[in-house]
Amino acid sequence: MFPTSSNTQPHKPTLRALILTGLLCLVALPISANDELGFVLNSFSFLIWGVLVMWMCAGFTMLESGTVRTKNASVICLKNLGLFSIACITYYIIGYDLMYTEVWHFIGKPFTTGFGHGPSAAEVTMISDAVNKDIVNTNAVISEQDYSTMSDWFFQMVFVATTASIVSGALAERVRLWSFFAFIFILVAFIYPVVGAMTWGGGLLTELGFVDFAGSTIVHSTGGWAALAGVLIVGPRIGKFRKNGTVHPTPPSNVPLVTLGVLILWLGWMGFNGGSVLQMDGPVAATVMSDVIANTVMAGAAGVLVIMALSKVILGRMSLLAVLNGAIAGLVAITAAPNFHDMIWLAIVIGAVGGFLCLVSMRLFDAIKIDDVVSAIPAHLVAGIWGTMAACFTNADAEIWIQFFGILVVGAFTFAVSWVAWYLIDLTLGLRISAETEELGQDVTELGMETYPEFVQVIDHEMYAEELEERA
Amino acid sequence: MFPTSSNTQPHKPTLRALILTGLLCLVALPISANDELGFVLNSFSFLIWGVLVMWMCAGFTMLESGTVRTKNASVICLKNLGLFSIACITYYIIGYDLMYTEVWHFIGKPFTTGFGHGPSAAEVTMISDAVNKDIVNTNAVISEQDYSTMSDWFFQMVFVATTASIVSGALAERVRLWSFFAFIFILVAFIYPVVGAMTWGGGLLTELGFVDFAGSTIVHSTGGWAALAGVLIVGPRIGKFRKNGTVHPTPPSNVPLVTLGVLILWLGWMGFNGGSVLQMDGPVAATVMSDVIANTVMAGAAGVLVIMALSKVILGRMSLLAVLNGAIAGLVAITAAPNFHDMIWLAIVIGAVGGFLCLVSMRLFDAIKIDDVVSAIPAHLVAGIWGTMAACFTNADAEIWIQFFGILVVGAFTFAVSWVAWYLIDLTLGLRISAETEELGQDVTELGMETYPEFVQVIDHEMYAEELEERA
Amino acid sequence: MFPTSSNTQPHKPTLRALILTGLLCLVALPISANDELGFVLNSFSFLIWGVLVMWMCAGFTMLESGTVRTKNASVICLKNLGLFSIACITYYIIGYDLMYTEVWHFIGKPFTTGFGHGPSAAEVTMISDAVNKDIVNTNAVISEQDYSTMSDWFFQMVFVATTASIVSGALAERVRLWSFFAFIFILVAFIYPVVGAMTWGGGLLTELGFVDFAGSTIVHSTGGWAALAGVLIVGPRIGKFRKNGTVHPTPPSNVPLVTLGVLILWLGWMGFNGGSVLQMDGPVAATVMSDVIANTVMAGAAGVLVIMALSKVILGRMSLLAVLNGAIAGLVAITAAPNFHDMIWLAIVIGAVGGFLCLVSMRLFDAIKIDDVVSAIPAHLVAGIWGTMAACFTNADAEIWIQFFGILVVGAFTFAVSWVAWYLIDLTLGLRISAETEELGQDVTELGMETYPEFVQVIDHEMYAEELEERA
Repeated sequence: MFPTSSNTQPHKPTLRALILTGLLCLVALPISANDELGFVLNSFSFLIWGVLVMWMCAGFTMLESGTVRTKNASVICLKNLGLFSIACITYYIIGYDLMYTEVWHFIGKPFTTGFGHGPSAAEVTMISDAVNKDIVNTNAVISEQDYSTMSDWFFQMVFVATTASIVSGALAERVRLWSFFAFIFILVAFIYPVVGAMTWGGGLLTELGFVDFAGSTIVHSTGGWAALAGVLIVGPRIGKFRKNGTVHPTPPSNVPLVTLGVLILWLGWMGFNGGSVLQMDGPVAATVMSDVIANTVMAGAAGVLVIMALSKVILGRMSLLAVLNGAIAGLVAITAAPNFHDMIWLAIVIGAVGGFLCLVSMRLFDAIKIDDVVSAIPAHLVAGIWGTMAACFTNADAEIWIQFFGILVVGAFTFAVSWVAWYLIDLTLGLRISAETEELGQDVTELGMETYPEFVQVIDHEMYAEELEERA
Repeated sequence: MFPTSSNTQPHKPTLRALILTGLLCLVALPISANDELGFVLNSFSFLIWGVLVMWMCAGFTMLESGTVRTKNASVICLKNLGLFSIACITYYIIGYDLMYTEVWHFIGKPFTTGFGHGPSAAEVTMISDAVNKDIVNTNAVISEQDYSTMSDWFFQMVFVATTASIVSGALAERVRLWSFFAFIFILVAFIYPVVGAMTWGGGLLTELGFVDFAGSTIVHSTGGWAALAGVLIVGPRIGKFRKNGTVHPTPPSNVPLVTLGVLILWLGWMGFNGGSVLQMDGPVAATVMSDVIANTVMAGAAGVLVIMALSKVILGRMSLLAVLNGAIAGLVAITAAPNFHDMIWLAIVIGAVGGFLCLVSMRLFDAIKIDDVVSAIPAHLVAGIWGTMAACFTNADAEIWIQFFGILVVGAFTFAVSWVAWYLIDLTLGLRISAETEELGQDVTELGMETYPEFVQVIDHEMYAEELEERA
Repeated sequence: MFPTSSNTQPHKPTLRALILTGLLCLVALPISANDELGFVLNSFSFLIWGVLVMWMCAGFTMLESGTVRTKNASVICLKNLGLFSIACITYYIIGYDLMYTEVWHFIGKPFTTGFGHGPSAAEVTMISDAVNKDIVNTNAVISEQDYSTMSDWFFQMVFVATTASIVSGALAERVRLWSFFAFIFILVAFIYPVVGAMTWGGGLLTELGFVDFAGSTIVHSTGGWAALAGVLIVGPRIGKFRKNGTVHPTPPSNVPLVTLGVLILWLGWMGFNGGSVLQMDGPVAATVMSDVIANTVMAGAAGVLVIMALSKVILGRMSLLAVLNGAIAGLVAITAAPNFHDMIWLAIVIGAVGGFLCLVSMRLFDAIKIDDVVSAIPAHLVAGIWGTMAACFTNADAEIWIQFFGILVVGAFTFAVSWVAWYLIDLTLGLRISAETEELGQDVTELGMETYPEFVQVIDHEMYAEELEERA
């Protein structure tokens, strides 16, 4: 079992390091040859990998803008830009501290150490001394921190932005702009930090030994549960599910954009999992990071290949969209435990199963009339659950019942709070655009613009006709 | 005041380090635990962040290609590819040395140390020894340089390319290809290096204590002033400003492309500001870099949010394009002084005001009939001026009158020389395409191609009708 | 001549380091100030630059998807996603070991050290000790390896994926999906590893002193030869070459996408060449890496400028597509030997000649009726041959006849085996889609989808009419 005794010191940003890498941290100091350069390298790892994770926002934006109808392709760009900005500032003001600070300290923080999550006192002193050309003593910083405060904040912030991005795609084409932003605020200010506090923040699930290296559950499933609650409350797009039981096809309006989006996500995932080693200060950390990246890329590739093969068998034709989702599902599946060093081929198996489950649940969700525009729930929630369980195969610390319990707790909490939040937003602001807006598209009605104003387009009015007639 | 006494040694590539980080450099050597690895890390910081800045070229290309009419969307791709290439080679041959070498040395350089800006003599010796398997002595290099010569050149080169990119968007859809390239050559060979010499190169403004960390004025406003001079000389697009005082709308032809462009710029900006710490060799540098990146991302987010909020209030609807410009303006605004370590929330204020000023000046420029196709001048020049002044809030070395004087000197010099350059190009090569070409589009007339040849398009001929009739 | 005596120890992953950097490696240990952090930095260099090379897959995908007719723009996305995934997993299972292991060891490997190319035994022990909180001894790893095993695998894997990407574009719009994948498997499992074994793997060409720093021949020409064999067997698209000797124009369907693709490739190339220094553990390596990146960016810029200039002179107009190919050709040309430290202007010459030769051969290939959809063969094969020869100007170790011999051996081997492979695939699976599918497009026939279903399109049926009538 995981040795939690020395790890349960709350309100330490380094705690996530202690928990996630586990193995690493207790031996990190003697391994590191040079503490000052170790601090530099750990911080730089957060920054450079974090920048790639940040850019996953562009991946989700392209993926979603290419998938929705042309008439909603601009508003989804705005939603993604807005959600990233809300996530960034909210996580600075509230989210990070709620996740990594004990509750009573969190409440007192604005009055004691000040507003928002800024550099540590030791860092401010160190830099002031440098500015004033006093003797600079780095020991105070180095002895307390393995990396700079804001490099850690940045890396954590781009993770919550990823969680928020998952939601926007699933609910596209029918949710009001500001109502959506209201939910994102709640997600970033409360839901994600509480999930994070239970796990990476050193709470209940950490004490039990729950394993989730880079967030199959904590990031991807959390986004998936929040999206699922929203989808259930807001309902499917008008005309998506026909009275006769068939599904109205809504093919992506711009396929290369969707492909570009997935390839951006794949790029960002290298930082997502690679950076989650949280250290780059010695041979152990460098080797773990390399193994993590190799396992991650192979799981994504396996997700692609399994759907390429099964598409042919099951659907009789190859589906590019399923293949693209397969890449994401493979990457999500490996995210809970990519840090294994032997039997690398297990990464292929985990990614392949993730892809397969995503494909199956895409079909299932259509059958049970859950309208998830970009298949975010199959790719992020279903594959995330699988990946969290699959950690038992690759990480000796992961125990099957603890993993299952962790999935359950995170799922129940996220789904319940999200459901209430969506419900309350619906009651107050109203969640759904009018049927007229839905038919015309949000670009024209909410933004007064067209995404491609110079291209002659075919609008699919048939989709809405049957259901709207029936209502009238 | 800023201690200039020890910093005014011209023709040192490390001078920019001395100036910009100020604080850091005097204490850098004792801080760095290991000089050899410090040299490696500083050089690598330039390379990896520089690569992201280089890719801002793709950001500007996508932003501009998506914003112009479809009929000009290919030629703007060519302009951007060409300007980057011209910038790269011109800055190697002339620009860098003019910026960082005293004038009499600059003139003699081709005869003494040779053509272009290559590796230092000490570096060539070090590598020759390595090649010949002689004993390699790194001391000669390490004692003179904090980083490799060409890593610094690369990082500086991609900055001048950014300045040049700002110009292409503002003047799109009406400037001749080769006339535009002629101006870019002048900008990179003369205007930018002189501005740089006055500031980062250790000239007048440095001696006065002018603060501009990563180039709100030096890069962004310089590009903005050059663009403004061009816009005034070349005039607005035919039909843009109607006789009755209204403005003919020219909505972007491909919105996801514009969004992608802005997200690429955001990505690159992490390198733009993060790399401008110029060091990564110890805990001080790593902490400063982290704070810079955190402040930068928050200023961009604040620029987005303030326009999301104000669009609703002022315009009655949300404008995606204003929001996208808000991101850029927020990022430009923080660029003059993102290196503060306390009161991180000031980054939010600076970015938000930058976004607000950009929004206001977008409207103002329409009112005074300045036709800036991509709103480059509001986003880069106006927000750049604000950011340079705002440095007074966050950097104790920045003095309000010095900052104001710096903005004035750079503005007057850049605008005047640019104006003369644009004017002379107009006299000789001719600056403006024919009215016929303007109506047909430069893609067909200058490149003999269509950007999207298989899509049926709606061409807006009405825009040109009134003005062309009147002329006839 | 190149001192091969100490370098010809096969089945060492570090051999490529020994060979490529040559100069560096023999002095590397004394130069490195700190072996543990050197190990970290070398591994990190592979990972971060490798991630950029990996993303060249997105570059090829966008380039190709924007170049083909709209009716084939989705299937080419799928081909690129599939080929990357096949390359990744095949290179893990077979390719890497075949390239870097002696043949008899390769055959026995699954029974001795296990399936696939995983972390070294020393690494697994080191990490197990860390996990079990035993005393961690990094010496066993550090003394045997300069970087972690999987960081090297990752960096090498993304190179073979690049080779495979080159093939997909040349044969677009007429090759069956699974037949194409079958060839990619052969390329990654056999052709590329054998070429690699002869060169970077320490074989014949290495012993002779063949110089190819980052793969002008080994990666780019190999891809080009494989594509050429395929193009010859599968033949041109129906109607591309008219009976009357003229060429039917097939302009790109989405120009900004092509431009984005090239700019992504340019970004990735910084990692391609920069990372190929294979070390980042001391001032020599950092300086070489900086010079490599400066030379690379300048060669690309020169390729652009020479075609901008010559297009005007030769074609009477500027061709954006030729310019975009010029960038690639310039980058390919410098790839064989970007590691020179004096006379940096030679990079401009090498890139410019690469661009020029690409332009000329684009015309030539049209004349001799070789239908290469994206001009991959001019840009990668022709410029690759030139670059390999041009190494003689910049690398004292490169001898003209050895370089020529290397080009010949790699070319003969790759072309012959590829020809047989394409031929056998044609016999068994069938290589070419039906004429009907070719006219309708593979998106509808093979994927049952349209790339831009909501845009009204103009389909060019004329292209097929003449030839199909004639056949009937």
